[in-house]
Amino acid sequence: MTLPSLYLKSQMDRRITRGHLWIYSNEVDVKRSPLKGLEPGTQVQVYSAKERLLGVAQVNPANLICARMVSRTAEPLGGGLLRERLAQALQLREAAFDQPYYRLVYGDSDLLPGLVVDRFGDYLVVQIASAGMEQLKDEVVDALTKLLSPAGILLANEHSARELEGLERYTQVAYGEVPEQVELIENGARFMAPVQAGQKTGWFYDHRQGRKLLNQWVEEARVLDVFSYIGGWGVQAAVAGASEVVCVDASPSATDGVMQNAELNGVAAKVTTQTGKAIEVLKALIAAGERFDVVVLDPPAFIKKRKDQKAGEAAYRHINELGLKLLNSGGLLVSASCSMHLAEDTLIDIVRGSAWKQGRDARIIARQGQGADHPIHPAIAETCYLKAVFARVFA
Amino acid sequence: MTLPSLYLKSQMDRRITRGHLWIYSNEVDVKRSPLKGLEPGTQVQVYSAKERLLGVAQVNPANLICARMVSRTAEPLGGGLLRERLAQALQLREAAFDQPYYRLVYGDSDLLPGLVVDRFGDYLVVQIASAGMEQLKDEVVDALTKLLSPAGILLANEHSARELEGLERYTQVAYGEVPEQVELIENGARFMAPVQAGQKTGWFYDHRQGRKLLNQWVEEARVLDVFSYIGGWGVQAAVAGASEVVCVDASPSATDGVMQNAELNGVAAKVTTQTGKAIEVLKALIAAGERFDVVVLDPPAFIKKRKDQKAGEAAYRHINELGLKLLNSGGLLVSASCSMHLAEDTLIDIVRGSAWKQGRDARIIARQGQGADHPIHPAIAETCYLKAVFARVFA
Repeated sequence: MTLPSLYLKSQMDRRITRGHLWIYSNEVDVKRSPLKGLEPGTQVQVYSAKERLLGVAQVNPANLICARMVSRTAEPLGGGLLRERLAQALQLREAAFDQPYYRLVYGDSDLLPGLVVDRFGDYLVVQIASAGMEQLKDEVVDALTKLLSPAGILLANEHSARELEGLERYTQVAYGEVPEQVELIENGARFMAPVQAGQKTGWFYDHRQGRKLLNQWVEEARVLDVFSYIGGWGVQAAVAGASEVVCVDASPSATDGVMQNAELNGVAAKVTTQTGKAIEVLKALIAAGERFDVVVLDPPAFIKKRKDQKAGEAAYRHINELGLKLLNSGGLLVSASCSMHLAEDTLIDIVRGSAWKQGRDARIIARQGQGADHPIHPAIAETCYLKAVFARVFA
Repeated sequence: MTLPSLYLKSQMDRRITRGHLWIYSNEVDVKRSPLKGLEPGTQVQVYSAKERLLGVAQVNPANLICARMVSRTAEPLGGGLLRERLAQALQLREAAFDQPYYRLVYGDSDLLPGLVVDRFGDYLVVQIASAGMEQLKDEVVDALTKLLSPAGILLANEHSARELEGLERYTQVAYGEVPEQVELIENGARFMAPVQAGQKTGWFYDHRQGRKLLNQWVEEARVLDVFSYIGGWGVQAAVAGASEVVCVDASPSATDGVMQNAELNGVAAKVTTQTGKAIEVLKALIAAGERFDVVVLDPPAFIKKRKDQKAGEAAYRHINELGLKLLNSGGLLVSASCSMHLAEDTLIDIVRGSAWKQGRDARIIARQGQGADHPIHPAIAETCYLKAVFARVFA
């Protein structure tokens, strides 16, 4: 079966030949190869204007990113190539981690655009975010089953990007059985992640390295964990020796999860939660004269699109200013952002300005990014999104 | 005693009021306050064009950076303010580290421009790089003596920046006794650092965090450490479980130091050295068909000034291309740069391009910067200089 052909406009192959995977709709020569007739998810052979074969891509005519490269030869994704990609993704994680708790597949970085797989020991949680990968869903489940013999595979297909791709949202057990909650171990602490009803895949593995770094600096500290979800930072800090931890999250099921995870690690006596909007809880803590030795700010992405840039930066500034008011002199602020559009330098400047405004002085003692299971593809800047700035703040 | 006044031109106080310490000669209103008559190192009161007191600076009329802020009030540096700054620097390090081996003072970031102090347990090695700090030399030695009761303080004043400041180079014991070599512990490994005759202060503490990260990924690996100096990366990797380590350095005393440090840690049987220029040694290793599981490239700064940008980037590219040729498939490249002028993104792109050119595919699994004893001053971009990119390379 011959694949349809997709021709790029003149010069438009440059980013692709450097290793990027995305083709934008304005880069396609639609006179020569109309996108319109193609069903979302179809695989096509991609050619430069000069008819050089660049490889195979999965298309979605309705999306601004209208095609994503899945192969650099004439071979489409599926079968042997899919198994090879998954095996390489596994090899990369096994080289980095001793225990089977990690993001096994990180989309573009593993040359599997639209596919995310988080591993929780014997359970796998899969997120599909493109029409192309949705077409290969059964093959993906089958290949994962053969590769890892899991007890269960969950399709947690609730990602907002699915709407752009014209896909419905659903959660479904695709193989074996998957309980409501599954266990994971991170930096020596145990957690139960609500894979069926929690946020995203149920857990955020990306901050593992930053949390490990923080753990060495919390001995006897009073710690505030804002946007805590189920306690990734806070409960680990309690296990690592913090004297007291307060976790703040707007979701009651998240703060319930914090206490469950604190109990699981035998540190419930040191952990309390406050359920409410971060800004309101922080203001109340300030008004009550509370102070902490460590404040962790790990908000959801405030800048999801370029047009949110200004409002998003203001939101980061606001939360950092509030967090700093709760920090003792000599204390440690961990200010994170998962917004790809917020540069690390900008986040550092937000910390600087927030401290300076309060007559305080900040020093950045560490900068951490996403862990090894969220590898950065060096030709795809969009795969580098996570920042955690560690600032010691005086006076 | 009233200090002389220095007036900035209109609008030229903006960077200073954001927290930066440096004043450039073209920012000074020399008609109102001539620089020429001032002796290098003199402290002056700095005013905005509108006569707002900005603080006190140490001047050097001969330098492009003609003044460095040392205080935000009318109080000059010295005496109580100097002791306060040193105490805060110590507090920051004691909060970060369990053992007394670190950079105790990191110039501008500790609000002590021109002063670097490395601590090796009971010994301190001091580098002074500005005329202003040179004037305070005796006070600095006295304050350090009172703060830490060291066994000895060495002035290792050989920094190239001293020429710009019109200062001679010299090495001199300023207090107590200082042996040729002093011991330090980093990430559990022991080292003897040649403080009297080695490079800079005798040791490079800045890569501590990157080395710690690498140590967890070297089990049973064959490791190549290029520009090894006395074995910071390589000997630690051997201690952490590498099966074999080859250290390369142009200096015979550096490779002698590698073997001495390997013996000190009981890993000499696993470590060998090659003394010679990196490029020549790498080419010989390639010709001999050698391959490694881990290659560390930690060169000296190839871009010392803006004018070296292009040639410097080419030098980084060259060394990365050679290093990659020696790396097994699935192997780990650690590509470092201590050039402030080389952006991390550029270094990542050099790794990408070098791999791609060889038909190989790189994934960045970690980005590390300078450790907590080299804090970044968030208003002084120049204090952020160190990068280590960890890339897993396939095929």
